[in-house]
Amino acid sequence: VIVALLTDFGTRDHYVGVMKAVVLSLCANATLVDITHDIPPQDLTAGAFELAAAYRYFPAGTVFLVVIDPGVGSTRRAIAVEAGGYFFVGPDNGVLSLAFRDVGAWRAVELTEQRFARPTISNTFEGRDRFAPAAGWLARGMDLSAFGAPVAHPQMLDLPATTATAEKITGEVIRVDRFGNLITNIRQEHIDRIDGRPEIVAGPCAIEGLVTTYADTQAATPCALIGSSGYLEIAVRNGNAAETLGLSRGAPVSVQARRKS
Amino acid sequence: VIVALLTDFGTRDHYVGVMKAVVLSLCANATLVDITHDIPPQDLTAGAFELAAAYRYFPAGTVFLVVIDPGVGSTRRAIAVEAGGYFFVGPDNGVLSLAFRDVGAWRAVELTEQRFARPTISNTFEGRDRFAPAAGWLARGMDLSAFGAPVAHPQMLDLPATTATAEKITGEVIRVDRFGNLITNIRQEHIDRIDGRPEIVAGPCAIEGLVTTYADTQAATPCALIGSSGYLEIAVRNGNAAETLGLSRGAPVSVQARRKS
Amino acid sequence: VIVALLTDFGTRDHYVGVMKAVVLSLCANATLVDITHDIPPQDLTAGAFELAAAYRYFPAGTVFLVVIDPGVGSTRRAIAVEAGGYFFVGPDNGVLSLAFRDVGAWRAVELTEQRFARPTISNTFEGRDRFAPAAGWLARGMDLSAFGAPVAHPQMLDLPATTATAEKITGEVIRVDRFGNLITNIRQEHIDRIDGRPEIVAGPCAIEGLVTTYADTQAATPCALIGSSGYLEIAVRNGNAAETLGLSRGAPVSVQARRKS
Repeated sequence: VIVALLTDFGTRDHYVGVMKAVVLSLCANATLVDITHDIPPQDLTAGAFELAAAYRYFPAGTVFLVVIDPGVGSTRRAIAVEAGGYFFVGPDNGVLSLAFRDVGAWRAVELTEQRFARPTISNTFEGRDRFAPAAGWLARGMDLSAFGAPVAHPQMLDLPATTATAEKITGEVIRVDRFGNLITNIRQEHIDRIDGRPEIVAGPCAIEGLVTTYADTQAATPCALIGSSGYLEIAVRNGNAAETLGLSRGAPVSVQARRKS
Repeated sequence: VIVALLTDFGTRDHYVGVMKAVVLSLCANATLVDITHDIPPQDLTAGAFELAAAYRYFPAGTVFLVVIDPGVGSTRRAIAVEAGGYFFVGPDNGVLSLAFRDVGAWRAVELTEQRFARPTISNTFEGRDRFAPAAGWLARGMDLSAFGAPVAHPQMLDLPATTATAEKITGEVIRVDRFGNLITNIRQEHIDRIDGRPEIVAGPCAIEGLVTTYADTQAATPCALIGSSGYLEIAVRNGNAAETLGLSRGAPVSVQARRKS
Repeated sequence: VIVALLTDFGTRDHYVGVMKAVVLSLCANATLVDITHDIPPQDLTAGAFELAAAYRYFPAGTVFLVVIDPGVGSTRRAIAVEAGGYFFVGPDNGVLSLAFRDVGAWRAVELTEQRFARPTISNTFEGRDRFAPAAGWLARGMDLSAFGAPVAHPQMLDLPATTATAEKITGEVIRVDRFGNLITNIRQEHIDRIDGRPEIVAGPCAIEGLVTTYADTQAATPCALIGSSGYLEIAVRNGNAAETLGLSRGAPVSVQARRKS
């Protein structure tokens, strides 16, 4: 069984290692996979996007242990969710919601059953004392319903909205990756409905049409393409679009129809 | 069997990967867990604290492979230590000592037996040629006494001292974590003995009393609490205490009794 | 079976986690080892050096999944190579070549067989859709010849040249590691042939003779030694040679014979 971890803990402290120790103490044959631990501290939205982009490539049965938890120690709930054969464990603050809502049918429970947590639960590190044990027990095959009562309305994260007509789509940058690629919330199917050749406007630049891959473009020139997750992306071949264009998450992006005249 | 790694090697070079390769060459079914590799170069004290904070969450039998080794290639000894069912492998420079001394009874041996090292031992990378093989052999179940002669007096690291009376405790910051939390060497039981309401003084700020969790405090205001390892910690909710207060490791922290008047 | 990963993807995005998910979907019992993901973006040469320095410490049968791929989505080939019982998977741009050429006899195939890739192949993330599946299938034991037609002339990377006489060797810095050590392309056997005591010149400093380990030198003083990979290395004990000397990759280094007069 895979337990995949996603946190904002970074890797310079022992926090992630200790969560893994707790999981392995309960399920010695778990295979641990790091999605990332470099989500900016307390950035729920960034964590939710990474999880939603990643989960589908894991085999069914994978347990996702997600701890981005600005409300640690407060009364916010701790939850586990099953959806499409996957399990998601984390705080009930929306960080899981983009992923499990995407799968389709889901059921959620609150993590209240004490015997599936560590005996004492730190008010500042529920990742170790509550979430990691729950992930370990799920990896061992414990049924979701054993952990606590159903949660009918877990916290849902609102995605930044897009508006789309045949004339114009407006959206925004939702992720900037390591290469400086600007990933937007505009999907391929939105663009397919544009009536004419699309012109992409982002910050200081207007890009004519989409390319299919970086290699179709000149180095150092911004281009637009559908990225590996199915979203419109602005990139600079062998360069850094975020730096070149001075754009970051939240920057507005629009696609307009240019008629052949 | 878990082999848990803690080094100052960083992750941009192949050094950690190569140590794992050596362990897996000897013990193919070892489960490898990274505690961290981002200890500041040659910072024994930081490494010793991370190990001491982490080891107890791992299951018995875990082998800790710890390489923070400013004396690599010198005559400093290489050792393996058994304590409470755990195994610790590393240079005899004190980096292991906070952890194994904490467990209680321990026995140590020097790593001199050539057949448990690689055939040639680099003077600059004993992690690969001496420590990783020893960890691999321990993970395979080799008895500690096979590695070399007992070491009666391994190097012990002195913890920065605290002084504690019913009126005042003085200590210092021993770790700053990724979130900027300032972890001190003042333990909860010291504070429990304070005669009155504790006032915590650290750098420019005086904090009245302890909270039980970040959520009990206002954002952007420093607070004091007992952290997840049982030590007094100064934090800023959803912020960075180290930056806000301009404090780093070694900064003095005191707790004074304030009588209700 | 070990699958060892080497990329320039960094660890802040989900890209590496997703490649691992794909490998584990095909080969659930693979043991995943990260060599590094912090190769500078698109730096083929740096990736090739890390792979060449690391591969030999892994047990036979290891599959190396290497994705540093400035030509992703273009017509550059995707290849798999078998050499000395190891398997190498990656783009045909030279990044694998220093390693497999070093092993001795090798055979290479092009990755064209669709059933060993994901059903749709992103033009921007072949690591996920083409290379990771190939690594997963190789880890499962699929024969190399099943993946596609032989490649007689894969792209080879030229190593920066050294010139060596009994009087003088010239080379350059090929890697700077986390500690600031400057690793050159000058091998021990070159230096052994120098007729006299070697003087090493790098940037602003001239170093008399080699030491065998850092511990033989004074702190803060540059020294020269044969590093753990068998190459001449310039280091500052408990310091950072790259910063102290202001040198980086490509900096010329020479070794001259000094006669005893």
